[in-house]
Amino acid sequence: MNINQRLSHLRDVMRREHLAAFIFPSTDPHQSEYVADHWKGREFISGFNGSAGTAVVTLNSAALWTDSRYFLAAEEQLKGTEFQLMKLKIEGTPAIAEWIGRECGAGAEVGIDGWCSSANEVKALIADLRRQGGITVRTNLDPLKVIWSDRPAIPENPVEIYPLKYAGEAAHDKIARVRKALRAQHADGMLMSSLDDIAWTLNLRGTDVHCNPVFVSYLLISSKDVTLYINKVKLSPEVEAYLQAEGVGVAPYEDVQKGLKDYFEYNILLDPDEVNYVLFKSVTREIVEAESPVKRMKTIKNDTEIAGFRSAMLKDGIAMVKFLKWLSEYAENSEYSEISVSDKLEAFRAEQPLYRGLSFDTIAGYGPHGAIVHYEATPDSDVPLRPEGFLLLDSGAQYLDGTTDITRTIPLGPLTDKERRVYTLVLKGHIQIELCKFPSGASGTQLDVLAREVLWREGLNYLHGTGHGVGAYLNVHEGPHQIRMEWKPAPLVAGMTVTDEPGIYLAGKFGVRIENTLLITPYKETAFGRFLQFESLTLCPIDMSPVLVDLLTSEEINWVNAYHQRVFDTLSPHLSPDEVAWLRVACEPIK
Amino acid sequence: MNINQRLSHLRDVMRREHLAAFIFPSTDPHQSEYVADHWKGREFISGFNGSAGTAVVTLNSAALWTDSRYFLAAEEQLKGTEFQLMKLKIEGTPAIAEWIGRECGAGAEVGIDGWCSSANEVKALIADLRRQGGITVRTNLDPLKVIWSDRPAIPENPVEIYPLKYAGEAAHDKIARVRKALRAQHADGMLMSSLDDIAWTLNLRGTDVHCNPVFVSYLLISSKDVTLYINKVKLSPEVEAYLQAEGVGVAPYEDVQKGLKDYFEYNILLDPDEVNYVLFKSVTREIVEAESPVKRMKTIKNDTEIAGFRSAMLKDGIAMVKFLKWLSEYAENSEYSEISVSDKLEAFRAEQPLYRGLSFDTIAGYGPHGAIVHYEATPDSDVPLRPEGFLLLDSGAQYLDGTTDITRTIPLGPLTDKERRVYTLVLKGHIQIELCKFPSGASGTQLDVLAREVLWREGLNYLHGTGHGVGAYLNVHEGPHQIRMEWKPAPLVAGMTVTDEPGIYLAGKFGVRIENTLLITPYKETAFGRFLQFESLTLCPIDMSPVLVDLLTSEEINWVNAYHQRVFDTLSPHLSPDEVAWLRVACEPIK
Repeated sequence: MNINQRLSHLRDVMRREHLAAFIFPSTDPHQSEYVADHWKGREFISGFNGSAGTAVVTLNSAALWTDSRYFLAAEEQLKGTEFQLMKLKIEGTPAIAEWIGRECGAGAEVGIDGWCSSANEVKALIADLRRQGGITVRTNLDPLKVIWSDRPAIPENPVEIYPLKYAGEAAHDKIARVRKALRAQHADGMLMSSLDDIAWTLNLRGTDVHCNPVFVSYLLISSKDVTLYINKVKLSPEVEAYLQAEGVGVAPYEDVQKGLKDYFEYNILLDPDEVNYVLFKSVTREIVEAESPVKRMKTIKNDTEIAGFRSAMLKDGIAMVKFLKWLSEYAENSEYSEISVSDKLEAFRAEQPLYRGLSFDTIAGYGPHGAIVHYEATPDSDVPLRPEGFLLLDSGAQYLDGTTDITRTIPLGPLTDKERRVYTLVLKGHIQIELCKFPSGASGTQLDVLAREVLWREGLNYLHGTGHGVGAYLNVHEGPHQIRMEWKPAPLVAGMTVTDEPGIYLAGKFGVRIENTLLITPYKETAFGRFLQFESLTLCPIDMSPVLVDLLTSEEINWVNAYHQRVFDTLSPHLSPDEVAWLRVACEPIK
Repeated sequence: MNINQRLSHLRDVMRREHLAAFIFPSTDPHQSEYVADHWKGREFISGFNGSAGTAVVTLNSAALWTDSRYFLAAEEQLKGTEFQLMKLKIEGTPAIAEWIGRECGAGAEVGIDGWCSSANEVKALIADLRRQGGITVRTNLDPLKVIWSDRPAIPENPVEIYPLKYAGEAAHDKIARVRKALRAQHADGMLMSSLDDIAWTLNLRGTDVHCNPVFVSYLLISSKDVTLYINKVKLSPEVEAYLQAEGVGVAPYEDVQKGLKDYFEYNILLDPDEVNYVLFKSVTREIVEAESPVKRMKTIKNDTEIAGFRSAMLKDGIAMVKFLKWLSEYAENSEYSEISVSDKLEAFRAEQPLYRGLSFDTIAGYGPHGAIVHYEATPDSDVPLRPEGFLLLDSGAQYLDGTTDITRTIPLGPLTDKERRVYTLVLKGHIQIELCKFPSGASGTQLDVLAREVLWREGLNYLHGTGHGVGAYLNVHEGPHQIRMEWKPAPLVAGMTVTDEPGIYLAGKFGVRIENTLLITPYKETAFGRFLQFESLTLCPIDMSPVLVDLLTSEEINWVNAYHQRVFDTLSPHLSPDEVAWLRVACEPIK
């Protein structure tokens, strides 16, 4: 069944239900960024498989909104369908409600599955559409139940215990901290819906979502009880016993709405950006609308988690060095492609202890593919590597003791002046973040420009964020703190991880991105308060051969040399003599 | 009557009205930053005369919240009163609602004059206090009517026409643009309440507020009519005829509430941050809640206004150079004080054509007084200048063709190493803003760190904004765009003015601030969009004698030299040979 046939089936349902449009966001009932196949409804209806995007289908038209990371990929994937690409944050792109208003006219009714959008999203949509001549919204229909005949089931994969020696804090202690935070917000309980928050709180992990070690469930905390809503087939006797010992009861996944209706305390904290609209509306008690306190707790790593990150980064660095050495020696013979080098890198990582898989699908973009920000090579798109230009390689792994995320842009041979210049400017932006110091409580929005200013001076820019939090054997994207142009009030605090990944993408030509994962650590305390700094957790040389050293300041040169010295000192005891020799050259000081 | 007697009178009223607390914000019915004496109720009740602060009086306690600019001044002024100083943005300072909750307990009722707070402020206060155990808010009582026996009247000063040769756009054309903007927001009309917005729209000016050339009034725009609510005694026959010719009707100031009740169209745009709570609640039609479109229009200067700014800045630069030369020659004899040098500077400015007065009270802070961010020398606090250390001098003027705002930190003799270092770092921060380039639509929040990062590296910071907009012969503080740490989404656009004024304040020691007023101009257009840059409008040398030149980058040195070259070339044709000789030395290139 192709996309246009699916649209035709959908429109049959829409006509029957008198709906002028149907909206398909990219998420699941838990507001996950990456979702189990069961919830890939937007991909099913549009064919676009990026992690972010919203499809809207009217009786006569169809459109898909996505952000700059996916412009090129979406254009490719929407070819031959009815879908029109709507580029977010580009001048002239209509807002979804505005477009629906134009396409459907006043008084229409449109549908969205209230389970698969947050309360805030649906509330904003209702308000925006009301302003479009009084368009109304229906939230209790999931047309995919009818039109998606071979829809995958909700995953039933087993859950495993995440040992205390990696987690560093027992589940019952975390629950006690959550309850304390709830009391500070005058709340008696909360519904936890984010899968990584639940995994973190209970020290459990799963395999329900590709690359994200989470499991499908809800967690309802009251002042007396903690109930995990989960399909019991996922729980071994050992896990059941563990949950009981930690004071956590278990109920069927489908019963969460009933659990909320039966919740008997005075009030309940719900994060309206996290809890879906249907569950939000199911609550009969007073709602304390606030950000879930778990989000912030989870992002501030404890000492055990930080030690785990260092261990994971050491292993990841070893794998990267083995890979880069291999690539530098063998790439020239042209037998390798984007997919085969990705596989090779994966194989090097898989050799490392505690390896559990990738933390996201490797982005290996050669030449013009490097300019597709979230490119994923497929057998159709895969190209052989040639001994020239850049290979942009953004990859990461899940180890039981930590999660990694690293991007290197690798010169495979001669480069153009433009390639060298852009590479140097991106590196300068990267280093400015590495070097910066800031007051505790500053937000990533404030720091973002430090990576961009050097690019803006040349009229260059990138439209993605500069950095995101990274989980501790959890999701590779972890919020709410970020470094980005958009306002993110979440303060930066010591113990948080965050990536530093500026880039420049010249469509049809090449892309450059240089990414380390950083840890926020104390810098100094003065009469003006506590100040923080970044420390690179990532241990992997950054190729200096493309760099126009004249464009670097002495401070930037010093950073490169100190970083490479640390990379060499830390990794070389774990490498073969050949590998050490290669690394020594890669880490040679520049002047 | 001293403060404690005033409090006692207030508490009599509170007890009679069964109010547990009364809140005195710093503003007037128009949300003015600086207000006519009639509305200085917070100063009356607390004695604190800063431009920003909120006093709260309970039956047994009193507290005043203000920001870091005023910490030292407020401490001084609250001495000997019951008032406790609450330092905003300092860890441990309670929010106002939280404090009231603690002091007054659940179920209490507190008062605030609904005329003198914006709709949003009162709505937020009501919500915050409801969460403090259900504290309620009464908004229809102004106890100052009873307890302030010699309260000054609302000003009746005459209004004058602002000639088209300075305004650059006729009032009826501005009104047409406002109406077009209203239609784009699906609004039939609006109530304009900001005094500078009304002055800008009508090309009128007044003298009702110290240093701000505005006049007390409201402007109600419908799709057919424009009505100015104003005390008619302020209008000469000439102004009345002008208003009639521009299509503007006139009604008594007191009738605005009636005007709103009689407004007959379908809906009306009200900016809930601008319109006061009482007027907001008086509206019977549908309200379009949105930022007033006038704010943004007013901040983007037209070519005539920009030419006026250049003319005003030239005159201001001439006055500053004459003053700096005078100070450098005569300050050593110790006969001058903070007040007398302020008066001297004012006299130099008053010699310039089209001079209309100061744009704000001069801040002349010598030595430790320089660390009081918004210090104003009084006969009590005034100190003689000695031939050592820094004089921080923040001043500006109103000329008929433009408004100026400039800060120079002037070494009066030998400096300590610390003084030199701090001066150099502040200068570096200042230059980083001058140099930066940014995409059209970036916000000031994004750029702010460029001024701070060099300070943060040394554990220094300042808690005020880096910059604010400046009006065209209007208020010296003009929003909504700003450069500051807090999120201000208002995008920066070519044609806006904004100051660049980082500083460092070491309490009890000294303060350094260096400020130019900048104009935003186009930089370049690339595949990544339109980019903007800053151009210094201010023309006045920055003293280089305190600078540790080794700490400057070559880019920063080049900026200093190019700026000084431009200052010299632009000012010297208007100066005497002696003054030119002085300026030549002051503008000498550094290396």
